[in-house]
Amino acid sequence: MSQISQLAVTSPGKIVLIVMDGLGGLPHPETGKTELETAQTPHLDKLAKEGICGMSEPLGPGLTPGSGPGHLGLFGYDPFAFVIGRGILEALGIDFPLEKGDIAARGNFCTVDNKGVITDRRAGRISTEVCTKLCEELGGINFPGVKALVAPVEGHRFLLVLRGASLNPDLADSDPQQVGVAPKEVAALSREAEATAAVVNSWIGKARGVLADHHPANMVVLRGFARLPHLPSMGESYKLNPVAIATYPMYRGLARLVGMKVVDCGRSVEDQFAALAKHYAGHDFLFLHIKKTDTAGEDGDFQRKVKAIEEVDAALPRVVDLKPDVIVVTGDHSTPAVMKAHSWHPVPFLLHSPLCRPDDVAEFSERACSKGALGRFPALDIMPLALAHAQKLAKFGA
Amino acid sequence: MSQISQLAVTSPGKIVLIVMDGLGGLPHPETGKTELETAQTPHLDKLAKEGICGMSEPLGPGLTPGSGPGHLGLFGYDPFAFVIGRGILEALGIDFPLEKGDIAARGNFCTVDNKGVITDRRAGRISTEVCTKLCEELGGINFPGVKALVAPVEGHRFLLVLRGASLNPDLADSDPQQVGVAPKEVAALSREAEATAAVVNSWIGKARGVLADHHPANMVVLRGFARLPHLPSMGESYKLNPVAIATYPMYRGLARLVGMKVVDCGRSVEDQFAALAKHYAGHDFLFLHIKKTDTAGEDGDFQRKVKAIEEVDAALPRVVDLKPDVIVVTGDHSTPAVMKAHSWHPVPFLLHSPLCRPDDVAEFSERACSKGALGRFPALDIMPLALAHAQKLAKFGA
Repeated sequence: MSQISQLAVTSPGKIVLIVMDGLGGLPHPETGKTELETAQTPHLDKLAKEGICGMSEPLGPGLTPGSGPGHLGLFGYDPFAFVIGRGILEALGIDFPLEKGDIAARGNFCTVDNKGVITDRRAGRISTEVCTKLCEELGGINFPGVKALVAPVEGHRFLLVLRGASLNPDLADSDPQQVGVAPKEVAALSREAEATAAVVNSWIGKARGVLADHHPANMVVLRGFARLPHLPSMGESYKLNPVAIATYPMYRGLARLVGMKVVDCGRSVEDQFAALAKHYAGHDFLFLHIKKTDTAGEDGDFQRKVKAIEEVDAALPRVVDLKPDVIVVTGDHSTPAVMKAHSWHPVPFLLHSPLCRPDDVAEFSERACSKGALGRFPALDIMPLALAHAQKLAKFGA
Repeated sequence: MSQISQLAVTSPGKIVLIVMDGLGGLPHPETGKTELETAQTPHLDKLAKEGICGMSEPLGPGLTPGSGPGHLGLFGYDPFAFVIGRGILEALGIDFPLEKGDIAARGNFCTVDNKGVITDRRAGRISTEVCTKLCEELGGINFPGVKALVAPVEGHRFLLVLRGASLNPDLADSDPQQVGVAPKEVAALSREAEATAAVVNSWIGKARGVLADHHPANMVVLRGFARLPHLPSMGESYKLNPVAIATYPMYRGLARLVGMKVVDCGRSVEDQFAALAKHYAGHDFLFLHIKKTDTAGEDGDFQRKVKAIEEVDAALPRVVDLKPDVIVVTGDHSTPAVMKAHSWHPVPFLLHSPLCRPDDVAEFSERACSKGALGRFPALDIMPLALAHAQKLAKFGA
């Protein structure tokens, strides 16, 4: 990245990066076609035909990225060098005013039986309103020297932030990620974190007391303890004025962490594309994040993922009509519906620009992009490619 | 590898790695087809069609691997970081009880004329019985402070192990690898190895005396001086329970060195596949090594290499019927019959798994695999890919 930063120059060129979360798929057992191969995508196919295609490898062969590393790679940050804990992502996503040294964790309200065994990891998916009330009650738990701040996220999800001197995030999860067992004691993963582990376990004990009468949300599990890392801003690194159009908290948080302006927009795909058009004049890098492809994949709903892709395709002319110098369409990782999970498979990628050298790919799909001129390449190459095609990278050497 | 180790998890998934040694070839001048393209391989073609293909690059463009580096890469060990001398491989292959600090070298009995010039590098391919007797005689050579242990390997091949304080393996070969010249003095490649070089040269002088009346085995040549390196075990690194089914000593030794269990089996391809089936239940990683493809290539016997490939193809249903989660078929390097030697050409690769994303390759051959979705990729990627498809790698990051 530092090499790219040294070559980055300001230019009038505009880049639109459209990320369909979890875009890559696997063939449906009946048709032999992936979600993207099944979807009717005339506009994406046209871009693929006019552009240059390939398969993006988020972390490397065989490696499955979480959402954080998947996006960092797209933005040009080495995901192995910049590790962002889940708790920090959640905090950023709800605009929580983190302070230096804060420790954040992602919390779930859950249901436990009278033996303390988890029977529902999502407390019957309580509403955000209920979550908000419960968070207020938990906010009353106090310790000498440590503030424990609790904020609702969405549904059964909340954020715990510990603020105080000498706190250490080197802690294991209490969330066992399964039902039928009790939440775990939070273990310190280093000697320096032992005092913090004691505070967290004490907080959990008190939280259990506060929630005792709030069935189904009668317990909490915590995971992803982390501290705010320092990431250089995209604006400074690439001499860009970037904006993010994303609806899901975590991606908004991540975009903010790399220095993007995060704007408000409606939740539908159409709303998002409208927001992009609205903010087009003021920015030269526009990141549009579509969540529903991933959600459908995680739910194992092949057809819903197909529909989500088609919805993006239908909205695409709004972007094309703006004539950006570069349009990139890809995903942060694959989420094949048949696996109901993120996977390691590389992700279809297209770059459309008057300055690209088109290949023979005439369709936006896994199989077609595999034959594209970019081949299988690291996601970290995406930013340099986009910047170059927007004439934002100077020549190296005389 | 350490990154992969950190993500490795135990799963019920099973991986079968079939290595046809020296698999890659070059076109026959008359037909324009390689050995693999000439062979009738309906079962391999079916796996290629259902699976994902590419070309594995053992060391990198233009680099020709020996058997050690070729296999280390397949197992996920960087061949440039873990250098294993020939002598050590020979020692491991015959189960020689090496001790820490031992220096091992591969020896050949050879024939020299009365001027000391080599006339036959393999001493007329003496039998293993003769070799064994000669080794016993050589075992009588003694030095103060240094033990010189001699063990037969097979035919004209033997092992020399030096045991003592302060020995150093930084020695050049005495084997000139050609006839018409005399064996070389063993040169020290560093000052620290000078004393050891003197011991070795003294040993060679005495060996010449012992062998004087044993024509055609009236001299020895030595190569591949080396000391035992430390390699992390595959079992620990990948959380696997691996087993090797190999007949040729060196590959058995190599498998043992990376912590595989090495089982006994008959020498035919059919025997080897039967052994695989027998040990299938107790292991989740099964490495099957076929030597005869390489031997035929080294002998320049195009048609014999074709037959060897067809023999493996015919035995393949035995593996397919076990329904492993992952079947990988590839080679450790190319040994084109027209070159009669290892070469740098990349090696056809196929990965078959219910979770792979098939490409358009419908045939297992150099030309077809070159168009596969994996493209041309480093052999070091094979283990992460195999582990991922057997669901043995956890997600990285939140």
